[in-house]
Amino acid sequence: MRTSYCGDVSEALLGQEVTLMGWAHRRRDHGGVIFIDLRDRQGLVQIVCDPDRAEMFKTAEGVRGEFCLQVKGLVRARPAGTENAGLTSGKIEVLCHELVVLNPSVTPPFQLDDENLSETTRLTHRVLDLRRPQMQKNLMLRYRVAMESRKYLDEMGFVDIETPMLTKSTPEGARDYLVPSRVQDGQFFALPQSPQLFKQLLMVSGFDRYYQITKCFRDEDLRADRQPEFTQIDIETSFLTEEEIRSMFEGMIRHVFRKALNVELGDYPVMAYAEAMHRFGSDKPDLRVKLEFTELTDCMADVDFKVFSGPATTPGGRVVALRVPGGAEMSRGEIDAYTEFVKIYGAKGLAWVKVNEVAKGRDGLQSPIVKNIHDAAIAEILKRTGAQDGDILFFGADKAKVVNDAIGALRIKIGHSEFAKAKGLFEDRWAPLWVVDFPMFEHDEENNRWAAVHHPFTAPKDGHEDFMVTDPGRCIAKAYDMVLNGWELGGGSVRIHRAEVQAKVFAALNISEEDQRLKFGFLLDALQYGAPPHGGLAFGLDRLVTLMTKAESIRDVIAFPKTQRAQCLLTGAPSNVDEKQLRELHIRLRNATPAA
Amino acid sequence: MRTSYCGDVSEALLGQEVTLMGWAHRRRDHGGVIFIDLRDRQGLVQIVCDPDRAEMFKTAEGVRGEFCLQVKGLVRARPAGTENAGLTSGKIEVLCHELVVLNPSVTPPFQLDDENLSETTRLTHRVLDLRRPQMQKNLMLRYRVAMESRKYLDEMGFVDIETPMLTKSTPEGARDYLVPSRVQDGQFFALPQSPQLFKQLLMVSGFDRYYQITKCFRDEDLRADRQPEFTQIDIETSFLTEEEIRSMFEGMIRHVFRKALNVELGDYPVMAYAEAMHRFGSDKPDLRVKLEFTELTDCMADVDFKVFSGPATTPGGRVVALRVPGGAEMSRGEIDAYTEFVKIYGAKGLAWVKVNEVAKGRDGLQSPIVKNIHDAAIAEILKRTGAQDGDILFFGADKAKVVNDAIGALRIKIGHSEFAKAKGLFEDRWAPLWVVDFPMFEHDEENNRWAAVHHPFTAPKDGHEDFMVTDPGRCIAKAYDMVLNGWELGGGSVRIHRAEVQAKVFAALNISEEDQRLKFGFLLDALQYGAPPHGGLAFGLDRLVTLMTKAESIRDVIAFPKTQRAQCLLTGAPSNVDEKQLRELHIRLRNATPAA
Repeated sequence: MRTSYCGDVSEALLGQEVTLMGWAHRRRDHGGVIFIDLRDRQGLVQIVCDPDRAEMFKTAEGVRGEFCLQVKGLVRARPAGTENAGLTSGKIEVLCHELVVLNPSVTPPFQLDDENLSETTRLTHRVLDLRRPQMQKNLMLRYRVAMESRKYLDEMGFVDIETPMLTKSTPEGARDYLVPSRVQDGQFFALPQSPQLFKQLLMVSGFDRYYQITKCFRDEDLRADRQPEFTQIDIETSFLTEEEIRSMFEGMIRHVFRKALNVELGDYPVMAYAEAMHRFGSDKPDLRVKLEFTELTDCMADVDFKVFSGPATTPGGRVVALRVPGGAEMSRGEIDAYTEFVKIYGAKGLAWVKVNEVAKGRDGLQSPIVKNIHDAAIAEILKRTGAQDGDILFFGADKAKVVNDAIGALRIKIGHSEFAKAKGLFEDRWAPLWVVDFPMFEHDEENNRWAAVHHPFTAPKDGHEDFMVTDPGRCIAKAYDMVLNGWELGGGSVRIHRAEVQAKVFAALNISEEDQRLKFGFLLDALQYGAPPHGGLAFGLDRLVTLMTKAESIRDVIAFPKTQRAQCLLTGAPSNVDEKQLRELHIRLRNATPAA
Repeated sequence: MRTSYCGDVSEALLGQEVTLMGWAHRRRDHGGVIFIDLRDRQGLVQIVCDPDRAEMFKTAEGVRGEFCLQVKGLVRARPAGTENAGLTSGKIEVLCHELVVLNPSVTPPFQLDDENLSETTRLTHRVLDLRRPQMQKNLMLRYRVAMESRKYLDEMGFVDIETPMLTKSTPEGARDYLVPSRVQDGQFFALPQSPQLFKQLLMVSGFDRYYQITKCFRDEDLRADRQPEFTQIDIETSFLTEEEIRSMFEGMIRHVFRKALNVELGDYPVMAYAEAMHRFGSDKPDLRVKLEFTELTDCMADVDFKVFSGPATTPGGRVVALRVPGGAEMSRGEIDAYTEFVKIYGAKGLAWVKVNEVAKGRDGLQSPIVKNIHDAAIAEILKRTGAQDGDILFFGADKAKVVNDAIGALRIKIGHSEFAKAKGLFEDRWAPLWVVDFPMFEHDEENNRWAAVHHPFTAPKDGHEDFMVTDPGRCIAKAYDMVLNGWELGGGSVRIHRAEVQAKVFAALNISEEDQRLKFGFLLDALQYGAPPHGGLAFGLDRLVTLMTKAESIRDVIAFPKTQRAQCLLTGAPSNVDEKQLRELHIRLRNATPAA
């Protein structure tokens, strides 16, 4: 029926008759002529309804916002001075010959171009909200990202294999969504938190290269960037090294940016976890921010300032400075606000030094703390930070984790501020990187045991196998994360393919043989039958697209998302169900009067 | 690491050094030389290990079935007379230079080439079962079908948009899988039976062309070709007519057969539902079977044989013959077996006539029933069936549904038999067709009400809207099924896009306003806002691939299927869960001692 999408009509069609389908985005009457902006998923085009075609004009008079219309007409140039450079169709308009109302509309509950809609309104009327050009663009880009990923993976010989949605509950990791079984009284399926075990089994089965773009589920309390169901680009391959895997999937992300955004991603540094923590206090540093930590732990042991000397002389303590060029102009109020900010991350305070004149040494500094720090230490601070006149230095001194979290967050907070942008401390670009060489284990202080940083199937670096027994904290994993602009886009690892290495990991994690069999028995069985060397990774599609569209929320790149209370305002899910349904599933409600 | 897949090494690589990864499919010693058939997902290649490389040979001596190996070697021609025409690599072998055991294997519980494995064995050891070349081929083909569908749809401007997995229970249709909500005490999500409502909402949102290859869920007792979770290629488009939709998706299936099987599907007839029932007693006739019904209802009213005259004179009754050319040679035992067979479908018996000499009229017939049928009726039977010497005629006479089911099934039973193949009554080809013009409603005798044949959002044919009120049984729908070799591959319809037409359908179906709002309120709301004309369809991917691979069961084209009792024998799902998990979900088990 249609000859072109509205948004695609351009001067290339000048003088041609077109048939368009779309919605009345705006209607206005001007000088006895009716103008309708007709909208479809590709964009807008201006329709001109002249009164000289009486029947058509009468129809046009009845058109209101969001009516669904069919328009036949002639593409002609807009009068000089009325072009709209913001539209593909901005140089033309369509002189309407025939107008058919395919379906009228009642008055929508809000204007589509209202920028100040509450999320509740938007999610309740999601069908109309999705008509907004930005939402159309977001979901079209999401599709392009997924499809270009598929094309790249297809090219590389990867095969999409579907793994089950109704699977087994493993009380490891996050909370499972459960599905009661009707056939097996008292038993439950779980929705998958990820296809991790299945993709490894597929490698053992010899499929060689697997991928899937699939829903995963976690029943956790939701933060801004989380959803109960989320989408992963899940990948696994056999017979490739860590470097080969990284190179292949760096290639995929480069391909996706090129095809979907027409962006060439540039430099893609590879940084060890230890370096990232050392320089940025974060395993997903935002490299757009041109601020770095300066290590001071080793030169603060003997200062007469307990706040610094304490952590400097305690195992696991850390002292760092964050130098902010030009920051001496910050007001006391700004500094106080940053002090409050770092407390969220457990810091007890925020020491600072304004560097007014570096040449004057101690006398050129303005600070509540310098009086307690001896000259040699001050000289060392100035030397290591490379401080210049007009800078401010912030300090973190505490357990390393607190310092990293607090000063790492401060680095981002300052780095994303208008101040940083004005001072050239923030580079507006795509800043990807690989973080590699993660530790295998971290010590869980609370339970006094070692826990897997990645997951228990991650392989140790060659030569690190014995550390699992002798010194777990020293053991480095073949694990890698891809980071973009400070967000973790994805991560993965080379897996353990030999049963005896897997057994050592379980031993280090103190998982009993009984638990191993119960939770992972089928994986351990499979590893016995000539499992190939394999590894993989998973990308968070929602997050990737949120970054690429610069959306404010993950919910702006999902067609029908849940609220923070895991509800769908459009359909009213979850909802009450019939007693008969519960009886068939062999369950009953715990509370006669539910306490929601 | 690898230079080629095992199965792809051919004479094109003669004289070249290759590196291969794979599994020891078979190992045999012959004349002091060790031969290993190395297998990967692409197929097999023969590795020759000569004793003159002592270290390599020693490794080869240790190789057992299913060891994972890396082989470097020289591609050379096989000695004359030892070629294997069944393999891509059948003209060559690889002289092994280096052999590395990447991972040994314990002895597998069965031989991979054992054709007589029980399904329980196969599903319990699915990881090894999936290594079998046939299973590798099946899942690779499945991927190719899905990917080629995506490429076609992408080309046509369709956009993959994900719809929720955690959605609202609608107690219409099949039984839902339920997911208890932790946040909303006493409430439940349902897993989707299909994305039907969401895809219509996406059309109302203006996405114009939607598709998704997605899991759907039905908690029903399983038959051979059903799974609790199954995969649909789900499609919806706006602004296309029924014919345009059919043509576009006929194009998709043609494309998929061309790309995945190198098959050109030929003629694609379009047959009205009424004609299909009339000629074949089925709305998914297998056109490979060259047998058709002969209508006799109108000429059996006055015969002195109640079995025929009863149905012929009762409203809703039907009398047909099925002529089987050459069938007069069937033994009494065969005819008895067919008589038992039709009883499954509700037939009370199976009347038959062997046509020995058609020229002799009654005297040339052999049958227990002809004595009760007058000459004119016999002449009419012979004339209408076009019976020839040596044929057999089977008869069905009962309520139309019983006749259609029983004689329709008999047509397939005979048509797929060795007899039919020998007599040329079965054409071994791909026989696609569209069945169209389904009735909108069928009368549900039990509850004395009209039920939707397709679903309640299906649009009536233009001009049939009023029949919904005056004569629902006469109302034809814009619904269509695609059939291949007697299997329903998919189906769909043009949907109702105007709220007032939707209201009429609900009235005909006697669904109360309260129920409408409760179940479909959000769809009815959406239709008010300028919903576009739209329609679509869904293909069953599992079924399509089962047909294309000629697999015996849908379970042979699914990586990790469930058994008929909806269990996963590999992982042991469903399983018991912790009391703590149930408490968090506000549910408890109904039976202290579950009665599974």
